[in-house]
Amino acid sequence: MSATELRSVLVVGTGLIGASVGLALRARGVEVYLRDVDAAVLAEAAERGAGLPGGAHGPVDLAVVAVPPQRVADVVRSLLDDDRVRAVTDVASVKTPIAAAVAPHPRASVYVGGHPMAGREVSGPAGARADLFRGRSWVLCPGENTPSDGEPVELVTQLALLVGATPIRMGAADHDAAVALVSHAPHLVSALVAGRLRDAPAPEVRLAGGGVADITRVAASDPALWREILAANATAVTGVLSALRDDLDVAIGALRGGDLDGVERLLRDGVTGRGRLPGKHGSPHAEYAGVPVVLADRPGQLGRLFADVGAAGINVEDVRIEHVPGEPVGLVELSVRPGTEEHVIAALRDRGWTVHG
Amino acid sequence: MSATELRSVLVVGTGLIGASVGLALRARGVEVYLRDVDAAVLAEAAERGAGLPGGAHGPVDLAVVAVPPQRVADVVRSLLDDDRVRAVTDVASVKTPIAAAVAPHPRASVYVGGHPMAGREVSGPAGARADLFRGRSWVLCPGENTPSDGEPVELVTQLALLVGATPIRMGAADHDAAVALVSHAPHLVSALVAGRLRDAPAPEVRLAGGGVADITRVAASDPALWREILAANATAVTGVLSALRDDLDVAIGALRGGDLDGVERLLRDGVTGRGRLPGKHGSPHAEYAGVPVVLADRPGQLGRLFADVGAAGINVEDVRIEHVPGEPVGLVELSVRPGTEEHVIAALRDRGWTVHG
Repeated sequence: MSATELRSVLVVGTGLIGASVGLALRARGVEVYLRDVDAAVLAEAAERGAGLPGGAHGPVDLAVVAVPPQRVADVVRSLLDDDRVRAVTDVASVKTPIAAAVAPHPRASVYVGGHPMAGREVSGPAGARADLFRGRSWVLCPGENTPSDGEPVELVTQLALLVGATPIRMGAADHDAAVALVSHAPHLVSALVAGRLRDAPAPEVRLAGGGVADITRVAASDPALWREILAANATAVTGVLSALRDDLDVAIGALRGGDLDGVERLLRDGVTGRGRLPGKHGSPHAEYAGVPVVLADRPGQLGRLFADVGAAGINVEDVRIEHVPGEPVGLVELSVRPGTEEHVIAALRDRGWTVHG
Repeated sequence: MSATELRSVLVVGTGLIGASVGLALRARGVEVYLRDVDAAVLAEAAERGAGLPGGAHGPVDLAVVAVPPQRVADVVRSLLDDDRVRAVTDVASVKTPIAAAVAPHPRASVYVGGHPMAGREVSGPAGARADLFRGRSWVLCPGENTPSDGEPVELVTQLALLVGATPIRMGAADHDAAVALVSHAPHLVSALVAGRLRDAPAPEVRLAGGGVADITRVAASDPALWREILAANATAVTGVLSALRDDLDVAIGALRGGDLDGVERLLRDGVTGRGRLPGKHGSPHAEYAGVPVVLADRPGQLGRLFADVGAAGINVEDVRIEHVPGEPVGLVELSVRPGTEEHVIAALRDRGWTVHG
């Protein structure tokens, strides 16, 4: 443990994220004080055990600002006004606007922007849980005047580690560019692809398979939440979208002009880009062997498959289920280590499963 | 069984699909004759049991053309020249160009275009299997002059049913528009989103999560195959892509202009479109309750979870695994019937699992 130890935290805004931070820190023995403008939300968070309501009456090591995005900068600045607060962080998903608003403050050097890569489909302290951040990344964005090895960065790093997350340090602009590229712009594109299905004839939609189901999965997310995220990061997101629009023009031109090599170049870039995504251990996706198992849609089939896989001692690396349109049958693709697939196929066939391969 | 019975089939082109058709039909007692310009491929298909090599010497009920896409129309026409062949179908994934090329033939009325929605990542007769089409859709595209209740349609319908597929009848143009919308254009968009990651800084890519992994999954497919598919259906695909480009322009304009309601409208269209995708039983996606389980990346963890789920009698409806960048930990999301999630959570916690909820 470093000389700088995180012992006391003030959580401002006790919704899902704030209350979860409180629960996780208290489980690790940190003193947690809670503040919220909504007395009912505050009471509920306190009742769930996230911390002591009413704010801190003495000095605290760190204030964590978990209020709605549009209010974050104001709350951060007012906390910096109070020198009993040693350091301040927040959890908003877009960092540059807040960094810019905080920079002129005389105590800006004790502010470190934060972004835990975690969330739930519910909101409010009722959905809070101590393990929300476990195994997730927690991005730290120290400001230009914040020493990279100083106490504020150390305190926020401890916050991330104590709640079970992996701290990742980067500049605010880099962070916003990154989430625009790997999350916000792809999200909007997924919504647009899904939107094209809205008015399509039913027999056409019926031919949809696993590919488009994957591509449009995130399009089912809450539009009211995502309009705010996209708007807060509009500059970076429109940058990525404009580049994609240009790529789309190139693709349309190549297809219209019969330039198959041009089409193939775009597809090859896609293979390369896809290969850069983090897989297990943060390395590029390992190549596993796929074992497709036919699943009748009777109750308990997947459970029975799970049991047989477990009983056979098969180490499954990944699993995907594909439903067949209009058919009470599914395909389950089990990913196993290359070289073990023959054993897996034999073991499952022995147990009565139809296995492709 | 109908009066028109499928008893004998000539398979022309004995690669993956042709040989699989042969294997599946012979398993159902149909006489199968094989033909291929490549003697080695023909011999291998025959050796695997897909049928008798050397073609048919007498009349056959149906010829199935499974040659490479650019040769299909010529082969179909030459088979129509032979009136010992009662009906002709093919398996190419784009139907209008073939329909147009075949239409002027005097026996065009006995041609019925076909498209089994099945494939594998391998090619050639070595990868063939009798159950390749089981649980899959098989689209039938009768020509304009082909009676919808006549013998040719009946024979191809029997072909689909005998190999375990679900026959779906639609016009060639409708088919091509459908696959452009639900497969070809989304595939290219997925590749473009993935292509944007190609030259991104490593720390940015490291923030990628499950959303973009889903969106770009199909981008890993073979570019040499997909350039041919996209080119064959270029008109329909560019139609969808142009519409998407226009949607992208609307999105960029709305974001730049701060028109959050406009952004939200696009997102809501995405939710609606996504909701139209077929789920189990061909109905829209049922809403299940998600139970997220934390998985340490030790050998056998997923197998142990499978065993525990099976032993607890939990009926899992769907399952997804999310790997955390840079962390030897994963999250498994089990989908269960709403109302049963409390039982599932308790059962898994009893067995020592960390379950969010």
